[in-house]
Amino acid sequence: MQNFLGPDFLLDTAAARHLYHDVAEDLPIVDYHNHLVPAEIAQDRKWDNIGAIWLEGDHYKWRAMRWAGIDERRVTGDASFREKFDAFAQIMPHCVGNPLFHWTHLELQRYFGIRELLTPASADRIWDMSAEMLAEDSHSARGLLRKMKVEFVGTTDMPCDSLEHHKAIAEDDSINDMVVAPSFRPDPAFKIDLPGFPAFLQSLAAVSGARVETYEALMAALIGRLDHFVAHGCQATDHGIEILRFAPPVDHATLDRILAKRLADEDLSELEIAQFQSTMLVDLSRAYHSRNLVMQLHIGAIRNNNPRLFESIGADVGGDSIADRPIAAPLNGLLGAMDRDGHLPRTVLYCLDPTKNEVIVSTAGNFQDGSMPGKIQAGSGWWFNDQLDGMERQMTQLSQMGLISTFIGMLTDSRSFLSFPRHDYFRRLVCRTVGRWAEGGHVPNERALLDGLVTRVCYQNAADWFLKERG
Amino acid sequence: MQNFLGPDFLLDTAAARHLYHDVAEDLPIVDYHNHLVPAEIAQDRKWDNIGAIWLEGDHYKWRAMRWAGIDERRVTGDASFREKFDAFAQIMPHCVGNPLFHWTHLELQRYFGIRELLTPASADRIWDMSAEMLAEDSHSARGLLRKMKVEFVGTTDMPCDSLEHHKAIAEDDSINDMVVAPSFRPDPAFKIDLPGFPAFLQSLAAVSGARVETYEALMAALIGRLDHFVAHGCQATDHGIEILRFAPPVDHATLDRILAKRLADEDLSELEIAQFQSTMLVDLSRAYHSRNLVMQLHIGAIRNNNPRLFESIGADVGGDSIADRPIAAPLNGLLGAMDRDGHLPRTVLYCLDPTKNEVIVSTAGNFQDGSMPGKIQAGSGWWFNDQLDGMERQMTQLSQMGLISTFIGMLTDSRSFLSFPRHDYFRRLVCRTVGRWAEGGHVPNERALLDGLVTRVCYQNAADWFLKERG
Amino acid sequence: MQNFLGPDFLLDTAAARHLYHDVAEDLPIVDYHNHLVPAEIAQDRKWDNIGAIWLEGDHYKWRAMRWAGIDERRVTGDASFREKFDAFAQIMPHCVGNPLFHWTHLELQRYFGIRELLTPASADRIWDMSAEMLAEDSHSARGLLRKMKVEFVGTTDMPCDSLEHHKAIAEDDSINDMVVAPSFRPDPAFKIDLPGFPAFLQSLAAVSGARVETYEALMAALIGRLDHFVAHGCQATDHGIEILRFAPPVDHATLDRILAKRLADEDLSELEIAQFQSTMLVDLSRAYHSRNLVMQLHIGAIRNNNPRLFESIGADVGGDSIADRPIAAPLNGLLGAMDRDGHLPRTVLYCLDPTKNEVIVSTAGNFQDGSMPGKIQAGSGWWFNDQLDGMERQMTQLSQMGLISTFIGMLTDSRSFLSFPRHDYFRRLVCRTVGRWAEGGHVPNERALLDGLVTRVCYQNAADWFLKERG
Repeated sequence: MQNFLGPDFLLDTAAARHLYHDVAEDLPIVDYHNHLVPAEIAQDRKWDNIGAIWLEGDHYKWRAMRWAGIDERRVTGDASFREKFDAFAQIMPHCVGNPLFHWTHLELQRYFGIRELLTPASADRIWDMSAEMLAEDSHSARGLLRKMKVEFVGTTDMPCDSLEHHKAIAEDDSINDMVVAPSFRPDPAFKIDLPGFPAFLQSLAAVSGARVETYEALMAALIGRLDHFVAHGCQATDHGIEILRFAPPVDHATLDRILAKRLADEDLSELEIAQFQSTMLVDLSRAYHSRNLVMQLHIGAIRNNNPRLFESIGADVGGDSIADRPIAAPLNGLLGAMDRDGHLPRTVLYCLDPTKNEVIVSTAGNFQDGSMPGKIQAGSGWWFNDQLDGMERQMTQLSQMGLISTFIGMLTDSRSFLSFPRHDYFRRLVCRTVGRWAEGGHVPNERALLDGLVTRVCYQNAADWFLKERG
Repeated sequence: MQNFLGPDFLLDTAAARHLYHDVAEDLPIVDYHNHLVPAEIAQDRKWDNIGAIWLEGDHYKWRAMRWAGIDERRVTGDASFREKFDAFAQIMPHCVGNPLFHWTHLELQRYFGIRELLTPASADRIWDMSAEMLAEDSHSARGLLRKMKVEFVGTTDMPCDSLEHHKAIAEDDSINDMVVAPSFRPDPAFKIDLPGFPAFLQSLAAVSGARVETYEALMAALIGRLDHFVAHGCQATDHGIEILRFAPPVDHATLDRILAKRLADEDLSELEIAQFQSTMLVDLSRAYHSRNLVMQLHIGAIRNNNPRLFESIGADVGGDSIADRPIAAPLNGLLGAMDRDGHLPRTVLYCLDPTKNEVIVSTAGNFQDGSMPGKIQAGSGWWFNDQLDGMERQMTQLSQMGLISTFIGMLTDSRSFLSFPRHDYFRRLVCRTVGRWAEGGHVPNERALLDGLVTRVCYQNAADWFLKERG
Repeated sequence: MQNFLGPDFLLDTAAARHLYHDVAEDLPIVDYHNHLVPAEIAQDRKWDNIGAIWLEGDHYKWRAMRWAGIDERRVTGDASFREKFDAFAQIMPHCVGNPLFHWTHLELQRYFGIRELLTPASADRIWDMSAEMLAEDSHSARGLLRKMKVEFVGTTDMPCDSLEHHKAIAEDDSINDMVVAPSFRPDPAFKIDLPGFPAFLQSLAAVSGARVETYEALMAALIGRLDHFVAHGCQATDHGIEILRFAPPVDHATLDRILAKRLADEDLSELEIAQFQSTMLVDLSRAYHSRNLVMQLHIGAIRNNNPRLFESIGADVGGDSIADRPIAAPLNGLLGAMDRDGHLPRTVLYCLDPTKNEVIVSTAGNFQDGSMPGKIQAGSGWWFNDQLDGMERQMTQLSQMGLISTFIGMLTDSRSFLSFPRHDYFRRLVCRTVGRWAEGGHVPNERALLDGLVTRVCYQNAADWFLKERG
């Protein structure tokens, strides 16, 4: 019987133990997509206590607390962080089986050297020990990143963002051991069917210094912002797409009519929305391709489903779930329209619905064009799938229907500076998978072959994508 | 190598064996949703032979027999029960791999002490031995329930049902060791798009003593029946929803127009059907919430697909399968409309399509409101999913995306008094899962923690929901 | 630790090793659905080198090569087969985890006795050794089939095909140890919504010697061709259905109107397409049933998604992926319409989307009519699912929701004469599954029971379907 989260956690073969401890464990981290707040790195934020760093903004924990019966006051309400932390300690034993149970204890181990379980009985001790450490430079924003050997941080940023904090970080000589790059996420430009669209156009006009009333002006403004991002080290772009639509791209006159209709507050048809969104995405992909940027597509979330929560607390507070609309046809349509003209960029496809793994991987295969290994990626288990079963299914499908050796691997997608042990979790799972293959005679037990595979998936492929390309 | 269905069946770690034999095995059973016929409990029915109790009404067995090549005469036709039993014995060796192979032999073991395989060679012996026992009081309807320590039986009943048998049971002093509660299943009221709707309104009018020609009258009549159910111990309601629709609730005038159109035999649009069904479900949920009733939603079956079978034998005879329509949007819409006004009842969500487990669990998470642990449940593997793979997938998703510790666990959903060893099957699987976690270092091997988890999932959570609430 | 692809590959219990080595390993092969070119059997083709036989027409390998970064010239372009083979050798180490890695090395082992890995270092040696053998009669088209004990080859043929090669094979006394039967695949007749439809009608008219301008004439011509197929030993038909539609069958007048509209180049509605396709499939099924032919339905591919590839190289070159449209309702509708009139033929259902396994199996169950075991089959893992995970999932669902003992098992669906070790792969997996059941006490460890099960699934059921029926 293994100890809980012991050194050989998940490593159930000799081959896996070799692969993890001798190959994967000490590799640096390229975290190419997350939601860290750049200001907190620029200012090297410290946190008062573990309640703040854990519970200030983590909707994974909020959902678990509500699920376990904690009232909203102690979840997102006006209770103190100590009260919230105590509530979290109280429910922790009931989180057995959920990744939070592993994440929480891995974070206590890795960042604070605490090996005991979080329970009501240990809450005081853990609160005090962690508070002491959080006061040290070793546990500032940068300290936490350095502790995990993070080489690359890809944040997620709105088009109108000034990127002042990225600039400050780039100019700060005391932090030249890691790259903090913005990612361009122009979602508001696509939401022509939602109320906030006109306001976004106004912001974009303000920051661009030009009127944005035609499709051409909109694209010019967006690409202006994109170049601002590139000037600040941007390597990647990102699109969160709740309903994936595709219609063959249309001309500017048609798009201007659609835009005018929208700005006159007339209803748009499904076809018009699809035409507008498809043409814009195809046009942006051309801009990404020519700038050698990675395009990320996040598909298949259905968001803010709890109206009471949304109205009282706001968006993105734990009311999101997995959507189940068909995606194969529009996804192939979009990528086909980009590839046809030769400007499909390097792409990462993520779908929140894990039953679409096979659609995603088989679609990625359609657009591998031989220009480089793994140009189109099936992204690692996203959000609700960022757990043992979800990551394993993603890797199984990627192996069986594609080439896992080209996989750029793990990302945290997290708002938390404490979430980097998830790379450890992922690496153990990679080593378990490859170790089982070796043990069962599925692969030759040749060190160079298997060590190389693990190195590429756990670090090298991502480094090649996000660090080398900067060169 | 383990013996077939031996004492340690499915228990592949020392931790699992402890958890099952020392914790789960002897817990009583709360079977909160099934289709037992209350008259058979009230009258304490006995069966002439095992052919009758097994093959009179079990479409699982009928499907397997047809699949194995047995003609309809010996499945549902006019063959004798002995002929049917012989046909069943003949196909049993060909059922290897199907849960029927396990269920059948578990039932022989647990109820009749028979440990040999059912085959044509053993059929005579098994027929005779079981017939002898079925003549005893130990094997009457009540005897069979008592043998399995069943504390709570939740039957499924139509709104116009008099509940006379539930009344008789409640008043019968010789059966005060178990609760037999009706569940309110008003499906006919929702089927405004189907031929039987006007006839249902007439029955409802007859039993309610009031005309039912407006939406208000319909709701009043339904809630009158609901209160009749509550007066007879009802703890839960149930909705079987073949096509899950959602439209924002509309006012009574609109609903009255829809109702009038229907009663004039005019076609309704998809939107009108959705408006009628959504408003009624939201309104009923308010009534459930105020009476502290559990709301069960059974989604995703496509029924009576074999027209020849349907026309010759009738509904629900083994011509049903799994549907694959998207459900995330309407399900979130419905629960959101109930929660918004603060009257979302305790709810159990079941979907027949197991690839929707992730949608179901992530949707349940959206509506946990902190008022109690696990207020919204992802129901145990239903119908075709009530087997090792189906139950394991449900528990995997519930663990990884929710909190399994709050799970109310197993129910038989069965028409058969012999189906209670399925709780044993489920409990072994729970213990196997938790045992593997312990063995692999996924959870701390702390007895209180793991014993508590197993107790809650196998019995205590369901008891808290269905026995305590009666208080 | 097992050796790579050693004799006990996948056989992880003593029971599995017995079942494979003593029962399954030496059974002959009934490959009832593939895409072998009959002319190559008739002419007993030989290949110049392993590059030609491997890379001439295999889109699995092409996709992997593009995925690994090989330029199109060395994939399908004008590079020599030696260059293509070298490129394939170069990427092979990067295919670890993909079935190609197993298939490639199994093929080297089984056909050429080569046990070393294909890498750039071994490429020369393997090229030379295999070239020498490919020059021998042992490695002609027939030699390769005989080496694997292939008893039945079911090719896939267009309705207008003369079947001259099938005739030549049947009349050739030197090849009376195997049956090479055509399968009738009338897909072009269904594609009324696509550009090639009128041209197909003309070809059909030409080969039939009658005008094809009405539905009746179309059906007469198709059934004429079907009888030509039957006269040449046809056992099975096949339909590749990209979008599965169902509408209740309509009368000939309606169909003639639809046909006339189409031939006048007017647009058809979705309903008209569905009516045409549904009526034709139901009418053909009657013809299949009366001739005791097997009907195969291949559902759920979305094809030729890469427009650049399609325009430059053509159809079916590796631009296909998995579709995710709902299928439960139309599939049940179609089978119901066939069964209602009593002419549902023996049927094999394949869906490229593996998340539909449960829909497929539960639908098959609706139409088992007791006339024979397993009349409606859930087909083995197809195309992208023809790998360990895909085959295992198919067998898991078939076991849990149906009767695996009636399963007709594996088929290659391949264009390659070297792909028959996939039967070996499948058989090992069957033995692993049954072996694990035995080891874990899920089945009685009775030799007759388990040996019989393995024999049926690996050979006997398919032989009963495709060899006995010829009688």
